[in-house]
Parts: sequence; C-alpha cells; structure tokens
Amino acid sequence: MKRNEFLQLLKERILLLDGGYGTEFFKRGYGEIPGELLNLRAPEVVETLQREYVEAGADIILTNTFSANRPKLISLGFEEYFEEINARAVEIARRAGKDKTLVFGDLSSTGNFPRPLGSMNFEEAVQAFYEQARILYEAGVDGFIIETMSDIKELKAAVYGIRSVTRKLPIIANMTFDSSLRAVTGTSVAIFATTFEDLDVDVIGINCTLGPEEMINVFKELANYTTKPLLVEPNAGEPIYDGKKLSYKMLPEHFAIYVEDFVDLGTNIIGGCCGTSPEHIKVMGKLLSKRKPIQRKVHFTQALTSRTVYRTLEPFAVIGERINPASRKKFQEEIVEKNFQTLLKEAAFQEKKGATLLDVNLGIEKLLTEEHFKDAVIKLDRQSSIPISFDIQTSNYLEVALREYPGRPLINSARVTEKSLESRIELLKKYGGMLILLAMGKEIPKTPEERFKKILEGISILEENGISKERVLADPLVLSLGAKKDPYVTLETVRLLTEAGIKTTMGLSNLSFGLPNRSYINGAFLAQAIEKGLTSAIMNPGDSFVMGSLQGSLALKGKKITEEEKVLTEDPM
Amino acid sequence: MKRNEFLQLLKERILLLDGGYGTEFFKRGYGEIPGELLNLRAPEVVETLQREYVEAGADIILTNTFSANRPKLISLGFEEYFEEINARAVEIARRAGKDKTLVFGDLSSTGNFPRPLGSMNFEEAVQAFYEQARILYEAGVDGFIIETMSDIKELKAAVYGIRSVTRKLPIIANMTFDSSLRAVTGTSVAIFATTFEDLDVDVIGINCTLGPEEMINVFKELANYTTKPLLVEPNAGEPIYDGKKLSYKMLPEHFAIYVEDFVDLGTNIIGGCCGTSPEHIKVMGKLLSKRKPIQRKVHFTQALTSRTVYRTLEPFAVIGERINPASRKKFQEEIVEKNFQTLLKEAAFQEKKGATLLDVNLGIEKLLTEEHFKDAVIKLDRQSSIPISFDIQTSNYLEVALREYPGRPLINSARVTEKSLESRIELLKKYGGMLILLAMGKEIPKTPEERFKKILEGISILEENGISKERVLADPLVLSLGAKKDPYVTLETVRLLTEAGIKTTMGLSNLSFGLPNRSYINGAFLAQAIEKGLTSAIMNPGDSFVMGSLQGSLALKGKKITEEEKVLTEDPM
Ligand SMILES: [Zn+2]
Ligand SMILES: [Zn+2]
Ligand SMILES: [Zn+2]
Repeated sequence: MKRNEFLQLLKERILLLDGGYGTEFFKRGYGEIPGELLNLRAPEVVETLQREYVEAGADIILTNTFSANRPKLISLGFEEYFEEINARAVEIARRAGKDKTLVFGDLSSTGNFPRPLGSMNFEEAVQAFYEQARILYEAGVDGFIIETMSDIKELKAAVYGIRSVTRKLPIIANMTFDSSLRAVTGTSVAIFATTFEDLDVDVIGINCTLGPEEMINVFKELANYTTKPLLVEPNAGEPIYDGKKLSYKMLPEHFAIYVEDFVDLGTNIIGGCCGTSPEHIKVMGKLLSKRKPIQRKVHFTQALTSRTVYRTLEPFAVIGERINPASRKKFQEEIVEKNFQTLLKEAAFQEKKGATLLDVNLGIEKLLTEEHFKDAVIKLDRQSSIPISFDIQTSNYLEVALREYPGRPLINSARVTEKSLESRIELLKKYGGMLILLAMGKEIPKTPEERFKKILEGISILEENGISKERVLADPLVLSLGAKKDPYVTLETVRLLTEAGIKTTMGLSNLSFGLPNRSYINGAFLAQAIEKGLTSAIMNPGDSFVMGSLQGSLALKGKKITEEEKVLTEDPM
Repeated sequence: MKRNEFLQLLKERILLLDGGYGTEFFKRGYGEIPGELLNLRAPEVVETLQREYVEAGADIILTNTFSANRPKLISLGFEEYFEEINARAVEIARRAGKDKTLVFGDLSSTGNFPRPLGSMNFEEAVQAFYEQARILYEAGVDGFIIETMSDIKELKAAVYGIRSVTRKLPIIANMTFDSSLRAVTGTSVAIFATTFEDLDVDVIGINCTLGPEEMINVFKELANYTTKPLLVEPNAGEPIYDGKKLSYKMLPEHFAIYVEDFVDLGTNIIGGCCGTSPEHIKVMGKLLSKRKPIQRKVHFTQALTSRTVYRTLEPFAVIGERINPASRKKFQEEIVEKNFQTLLKEAAFQEKKGATLLDVNLGIEKLLTEEHFKDAVIKLDRQSSIPISFDIQTSNYLEVALREYPGRPLINSARVTEKSLESRIELLKKYGGMLILLAMGKEIPKTPEERFKKILEGISILEENGISKERVLADPLVLSLGAKKDPYVTLETVRLLTEAGIKTTMGLSNLSFGLPNRSYINGAFLAQAIEKGLTSAIMNPGDSFVMGSLQGSLALKGKKITEEEKVLTEDPM
C-alpha cells in the first residue's frame, strides 16, 4: 500500500491492529522458541491465529517475523532458516488476510544493540534490518512495523535499513517505555517523539511493557510531542508469574475499557501486545466501530535531543563552542589519535556550566577519517551528552556523524547557495533535525535587509523541499569588531528575523576576535541581541561574564537560563 | 550701559580695552602700594593715564580699583579709604573718558581665597565683592570686569556679589592661566569656560600671566569651549627681573603683531595687562580699526566640571551612586557628625573604578543642616573630586550646595510639574549646570510615548525660561523588575528620546531591587539601554560586572569608557 493511501486511510478512521502472537502460540501449545519457526513447521497455527484476528476485525495483521532478523536467529541457532521464515510469513499472513486486510512486516531488536549500548557497529544493525526488510518487501508486505524497541539508535537503524529497501511503503516505528516515561536505555517519550518527528516514518507508536491503564500517561506524552499519526499496543495488563511462566490475565472486556482513553488522546491505530488474544481485538473492534480519529492539538516545541536529553530553544539555547581544537594544538593531536579525553571533559564542563547544546568541531578534517567522527559521537552518547550541533565541513564526515547520532541533531551550517543547501536538504530529510542557515550566499551581504532577504530565500528553498521554517535557526552573521565590521548590522538582522517569527543563533565569539576584554564585548552584545529577540548563540558557557549577561537578559524577560525538563513533560492540555 | 546694548555693540565691532595701570604708575614714579590710593592722593596721575588710554583709542577704560576690595585693603592697612577709593575711581575715569568711553568697574581677588583653598567663608567673599560692586554701581559704572582671578570659586563669589547689586549691567569675568592651560589652582581653561557658559556673565576672558605669543594657545582653548563673547589682555611679554624689580619690555609694535591672531580666534574685546602702556593700546587700535569680530565655530560639549576635572557625557557618563547612606546606618551617623571619611573614601573609590561623576546624596535630610551640605562640597573640592550630581531633596540645602560648588553641577532631579520645575529653573539660572528631568509629572506614565511626551513638555517649559535642551539629561525611569514593572517601557523611552536628540540617564540599580543576581540584571539592561542610545546612568562603578558590560557596550560603538581630557583639549578646528 502506498504511503499516501495509507495516511489517507488513517485520516478516515482509526485502524485496528492485531494482538499477541507469542503468548497465543504458547496458550495453543506451541511454546517453542522462536515462534517464527512455526512459519515453517506449523504454518497452519500461524494462519489460524491470523485469521482469527482478521475475523475479530483487524485492519492490519503483522507477519510472524518479530525475532526473524539474522543476528537474532544466529543467537538462537536458526540462521539457516532466515530467508524462508520471513518469506513464508508474508505468504501465510496474506492467505489469512485475503485481500481485505493489510499485512505489515514485523521487525524488532536483534538482541544486540549498536554501539555504545551494545557491541554492534551501527551499519551492521542497519544491514540486519535491511536484509529482513528486503525479503518482506519482495514477498509483498503492505508496510512495516518496528516493535518493542528500547534503544532509539537501533530503532533508527531499522528505519534506515527498511528505507534502503523502499521509500514507497509506510513504516510504523514503536518504542517501549515504562511508567516513568523512559525507555530502559534512558530515552524519554518526548525524546523519542521529537527525534522521529522529521524522520522518514509514517506512524509512531508505543507497545508492550505496560498494560492499558499504565500506558495512558505514556501515550498522552507521546501525543503531545509529535504531529505524526499514532499507534498504541498495550499488553493485557501486568504479567503474572506463577513460578513457571509469565502470563497475562486482563480480560478482553476489561482491556477494552481503555480504548476510549486512547481514542480521546488521538490514536490512529490500536492493537494489543503481549497477552492479548483475538477476543481482546474483537471487543476493541466493536467499541471502535470505524470511528474517526480526533484532531489532536500538538504542543510543538523546537527541540533538539540526544539519547537521554531533551532541550528546547526556549528560553535560550547556549550552544557550547569549546569542542573545537582551533588553536589548541594538544587537543587536535588527541583527536587525531582518537583520544577523546579532552573532548569529553569539555562536554561535561560545558553542560555543567549551563550549555544547552554542544557544538562539535573536530578541527582540521583532512587529518581525520570517518572513524573519528563516529567515535566522537559514540563517546559523547556513552557519556549521556546533551544534544549536539554538528559543525563539520566535509560532507561525508557530516553524514557519517549524523547517521551515528541517536538524537535529533542540529546541523551547523548551510549557506544560501544551491550547492550548500542541496547537500543539507538531503541530510535533513534522511536524518532529521534543525539547520543553522547563514544569512549569506557566496558573499556576506552588507545590510540587515539583504541578510534578512537571504534567509527568506533560503527558507523558501527549504520549504519547497519539505523542510519547514521551524527547523531553521537563522544566523545573521557576527563579524569581527576588530576588523571594523559594524555589529549593529547583525543586531538589526536579528530584529528583522525575530519580527518574521524566525529563530536565530550566532557565533558570538567571532565578534571580539583579537580584541582585549573579549568577555565584556561578547556579554554586552549578547544582552543587546537578546533584547532584539536572539534565541540562541554559539558561545563559551565557561565565560562567567557572558553567562551572567545571559542570565540578566533572561531575567529581564522574566525567564531563567534553563527550564527544567519536568516542566516540558507536564501535560500542556 | 544695559547688557543687551553692550552685547549688540560687541557684535558690531571688536572693542579696545585699556592697558596696564600698576606698571605705568611705577614708571611714572608712583610706585606706592596699592596704586588705588592714588585715587585719593594723586587723582590727576590716574586721570592722565586714563586719558592717554582714551586718546589711544580705548573703547573701555577700567576704574583704578583692582585691589580696592575691603579684605585686600584691610591686609594693606587702608581699610578706612575703602568707600572713597572706589567712589573716586569712577569719578576720575568718567572725567577721563568723558561721554564717549565706557567705564567698567575693576575687581580682583581679595588675596584670601574662599574655602577650601583659603580660609574665607564663601559668603564672606561674596559679601566683599558685593560691597565694592555696590559703590562702583552707585558711582555710575557702565559694567564690571573681574580680572586676574586664579580661584574659580572666588570668581564665582565675585559674580554672585555683583549680581546681588544689579542684573542690569554687563559683567566680564576673567581668569588667568599659565601656558599649561591651567590656573595655579588646577582649573583648566576648558573647565573655566564650561563652568561660566551658563552663569550670568556677559563676556569671559583671560588676562595677565602670559605675553601675547604664549597666550594664543590659551585663548584658542577658551574660544573652543564657550559661546560667550571673549576678552583677552596679555602682558607685555615675559617679565624681566633686574635684581630690584620686575619689568616688561615687549615693545608696542611687537606686542601688536599678535592682535591678528586673537582676532582670527574670535576675540570681542582686546586690551593689555601688566607692562602695557597707552602706546601699546594705540598701536593695537590702529591695527584693529573698528573691525567686526569673526563668527566662531564652537566645539560645544555637554560637560560637567569640578574645580579640576572636566567631564563630558561622551562616550558615556557613569554617575557613581555610592555616596548615599540609605540603608548604611554607620555612614549616615558619620555624616550627621560631619565626619566625611566614608564619603571621601567612596568618592575616591568610585573615581578609581571609572566614575565620570559622583552622585551626592547625604541621606535623611531632616537630620542635617546647611553646614553639612557646604562642608561636604568643600571636602570633596579639597580632594579634587570629579564633578558632582546633586541629589538633594530639600530646596534650600540644594541651593546652599550649588552655591558652594566651584564647578558646573548636575542637578538631580526635577519632575515635570510646575512647582518642581520652577524651583529648578531658578537654580539653573543662578548656578548654571545641567538638570536630570524625570519622565513623570505627579504620576509615572505607563507607556513609552507618554513618558517621552512628558519630557518634551518639561523641555518646552525649560526652554521658555532660557534653559536649552542641551542642559537636560532625561530620565526615562527605571522601575523595579521585582515589582513586575516592564523594563522594555524604559528601553523604548530611551529610544524615543535618543531619536529626538535628547541625552538620557537612569537610576540603573532600581531595576533589580530585591532580586538575586542584581549585577547580571543591571549589566544586561545597561547593555540594552546603551544600544538604544543611553548616554549616562546612575550606577555602581564598584560593580565590575556592570562596568564590564558598559565597557563591552562602548567597545561595540568603537569607544572606550573614558576619553582622556587631553583629547578634548586638542584643537578641534
Ligand atoms: Zn509485548
Ligand atoms: Zn597682569
Ligand atoms: Zn591687568
């Protein structure tokens, strides 16, 4: 099914997904592991279950391929059946669903996370999902669903793998959270939703871990942070351990009570995860009876994320400039040797001093390789770094870094030239995130009006390519005061951009390059720029004068330097 | 002669003044001291000399009363002749001059400076000049000239004394400077000119100490700093000491060479001081032959002065707020006891930290007397303080302080109400200086536009009363952020005032009253206000954060915190 047809369908009515597989196979006496082997050994058991789901009213059934990726099958000792399990799964589902029911290829974790949480290289993970998705695609699925993911980076790998196979079919991307609104890997619901907001997936959702009652809060959070259609699949309550095995006891009628809540919160697809049976799906289906999804109000914020940290541009984003070995010879040498000690120290130091984001510039790029960029991203991720602004000149190094990144990145930067924008647009489409757009083409315009127009021109090109202006941080350009450049051109450009509703950032320290009392100059200018509406700056959070000036400027607006994340996770509705 | 007639005459042509008296009496065998006794003992000698000056072409001759004030005559042992010497001097000059020549009453130092340089109370000095001027006035002089003054405060006493006699006759006020452009008491030519710019005198000038060649630079400086008509009276060169007495040897033809220079620099009256004879005046008169004075270009700066310090509002005036015992109990007690130790320490400290001016507020005024205010001004003067902003609520205390002050004061402040403005206008007319005008009437207007209008209304009333808007520092009012007052109203008011060419100041620290991190808030706001055009603030120069913010803000305008006075004394033409 084409993506736009699928999205159209989601607008028309709430779709019903199927329920549990593993727990049903177990109940029916087929407790062997993995259940995916049934596709070969007892396909009628699979087909029967799926037919029951179809008869229960499911609009979508999933292929019985949850654990059928190659690495997982290797670990289970069944690698040899990899292709066959996946290809047969689609045939079975298609038979069960006939022509009326959509068949989505089901994917989940390989069981070994990509670095840093696991030992897998990211591209190996991507390759694993690519392989599985290719078989499912060739066997004729209508779309894909990625379920029960707890590592956001592995989820990205799955998406990138599937999208290497096809960009025509819809993808549903799920993570699984506990009631603290966090995945076990530390990613919050807000981070998940924000990170996937501009990735190339069609629906985002949550499944497993919680029963419907506990899942309401998680789902509410999800609904607040994304404009994408939503999916939800609760378990049939809390698992009960009888000394031998886990089982789920929530009865279909009890389970279905919560359907109304998920509908009210705006779900587009609803199904069941562990412990749910065709009976659960059937009761839900009756309650649902082709209802239209509600129009959600989304609390959209311009946020950037790392794996564990969600940061908005409000009230002001301090982009720490210190990870940059320019004129720090020893730092550059360390990086060349893949010694990231200073880099990680600077990351922690800047975070402590109030940085919102980290600008990462590894210095002289011709001394470096792709591995340097991957490793830097992985090390920062392992340290639970705040979100990154990627200040990388070489295009393929930039792509390598973005690809390795678990969160929603800031790309620093693009000029308003065809070549520069084209390459950044491609990256933004693939990897999401925001872009610092410089108010210049090949040359730097002299007047504020010209710089402002340059930004509008850039935004218009981005919008033609599906990148909304909310994803842009415009940089009015700060030139060197020492070189007799007029700082008021920059201020006036900030004012014009702010008036037009465009968020801004600037490389503050450029201003005072080579001058004495740099802090005073930078601090005073920052205060003036904030009064004009500046929303962010690439600056030194270790400079207590400049940070004081920021703090004072925000106090004048009745704001504090950092809003707590808890504020952002409160229900805004 | 009425003042406006005299000023009209000065516009028509350059007037010739007479020459030396003492040196001429000595040459003619009347070396007794004081020469003023000749008015009684040999009036024909005086009359002959004056007639020679009239015949040489002098438009103005001076009464032979240079040392004839009471204190000086007491010190010389001739007090008993005080009235007679002065009264007869006018009669003699009138006879010598017939009806054609103007007779100006001549006054000079009492020989004992007012406090702090001498032991006289200021009002005693005023009284001495008052007495002498009254006799000269009653005897029928056409105007007054105060000559060879080296203490600017004594010169002010002379002016106030004369003006207590009459406001109808012109006054010419002279000081004497050496070639370093300073009086021996430390007052510079710029300070003299600036301080007397808005005092109630008609002409300002320089006489004595230097020959014409050396006097050119001094006169050039004078001409740069005042819009008033100018007078110059050089000595006949350097005095030569022959072991017995000083004499002046510059020949009339040589002396007169420099007339052209003084004319080119814009003099309105020219004569000779020590060593010049009727022959010198005659040669000058021939060269001059009723020439019109040139139109001068005046390098007008909004400056405030103390006795020894000249401070412009450019690039920014830091008005030190620390001389204010509010909530400093010990400081208040000291002041009540006339112990000015802390006050003087705060003055020196603030100057060292970069204050341009000192705001002086002595705290709870009902605990104080006039003497407290006089003493504070005198102590600060003795310490060679920077110029003062008088933050005094009680009107007569304010007047006492202004009267005692040697320089050009800043008056802090007036509201735009009839009562408040009326009293300040009177003081500005009497004592000169600038006024902080608050952007409020009885109430504080809420919007920037209303505050701006309030200032325009105040300026219009001031201008009707002869106080130009260049003498106003408008205060847009800084209210407490803690009390939820909007600081952007203040900023926008600064912008409107700046656009209208009005200079501004503000009580910066009010902003953060009761809040944490006051420095950051004050510093950030200062930077923002400077960007809007703020030219001055009452603030704490001991706050290094705020001063850093100021320094940075000025650097952004390509300026430094303090311009050196030497820059200002350079020839701007
Ligand atoms: Zn599950
Ligand atoms: Zn003289
Ligand atoms: Zn003289």
